[in-house]
Amino acid sequence: MSIASDSSRRFVAGITYREEVVPPDRHHVRRIVESSGYFHPAEVEVAVELVEERLAKGAASGYHFVFADRGERTIGYTCYGPIAATAGSFDLYWIAVDQANRGKGLGGALLAYTEQRIRAMGGRQVFIETSDRPQYQPTRAFYEKSGYRKAAVLKDFYAPGDDKAIYVKRLD
Amino acid sequence: MSIASDSSRRFVAGITYREEVVPPDRHHVRRIVESSGYFHPAEVEVAVELVEERLAKGAASGYHFVFADRGERTIGYTCYGPIAATAGSFDLYWIAVDQANRGKGLGGALLAYTEQRIRAMGGRQVFIETSDRPQYQPTRAFYEKSGYRKAAVLKDFYAPGDDKAIYVKRLD
Repeated sequence: MSIASDSSRRFVAGITYREEVVPPDRHHVRRIVESSGYFHPAEVEVAVELVEERLAKGAASGYHFVFADRGERTIGYTCYGPIAATAGSFDLYWIAVDQANRGKGLGGALLAYTEQRIRAMGGRQVFIETSDRPQYQPTRAFYEKSGYRKAAVLKDFYAPGDDKAIYVKRLD
Repeated sequence: MSIASDSSRRFVAGITYREEVVPPDRHHVRRIVESSGYFHPAEVEVAVELVEERLAKGAASGYHFVFADRGERTIGYTCYGPIAATAGSFDLYWIAVDQANRGKGLGGALLAYTEQRIRAMGGRQVFIETSDRPQYQPTRAFYEKSGYRKAAVLKDFYAPGDDKAIYVKRLD
């Protein structure tokens, strides 16, 4: 699978990308993830814990971030990292855009920027795991539009009736 | 998929199963995992680290063990645990039998005992991830004989040409 030629050139006016993780990002991540209304409180806590893990251990945590800042405000982010014991496979753990800033292409731009970083780190492919439930259809459509294909479905993975879909995009 | 009716009644003469994890298990696990000749040194370290994680944090580590002891000697073990953010999905992280004690049904007995424990903990299904390379064919044949089916293959997951196979067995 080839990368759409424009996907790495996408940009959104007025947005700067930042990879350094700073303590206030705990609050930014909480606000962004909560704003979607998609996630359970326990999932929000997991998102914040990954920031804390990164702040405590640095890159050795295995968690890398891209934050999208508009002026002083952080309005979206991704969290990704190499999969242990693989040569070039990466997981995208989180991608989220503040609810008030959705529908403007920021998610796609964040994802394209993140894929560039993964490629620069030697990544060959990116995996994304998500629920296969109907309510996540817009999420899956976003991944598919971004060049990801559904590589596997694990039945009843999250709970009875809640399958896990594994998406993959090859970067090589 | 139903469980073969005899699989939960398997036993191997002279073997006792133990779930308590004690400091010498670091050495037992290292010896057992090294004895197979299957694993890279880095993989051996990961196996030992899971024991240390368990010793440090107890059940909160998320790692559970079954050790197969013959008299004073530990000759096989499994490491498994619930998958975070799922209702009833478990991973089997490790199953290994000391090289000198293979071919006697101990692996199958250990696996059946472990599945009983998982069921008792509310587990609905067990996942096993393994390389799809030819050298792991005996391992995959063992899982298939034990009632696991290949639910997914992720191409080039571990490295180019080294796919990951995901096996699953339903316990309900």
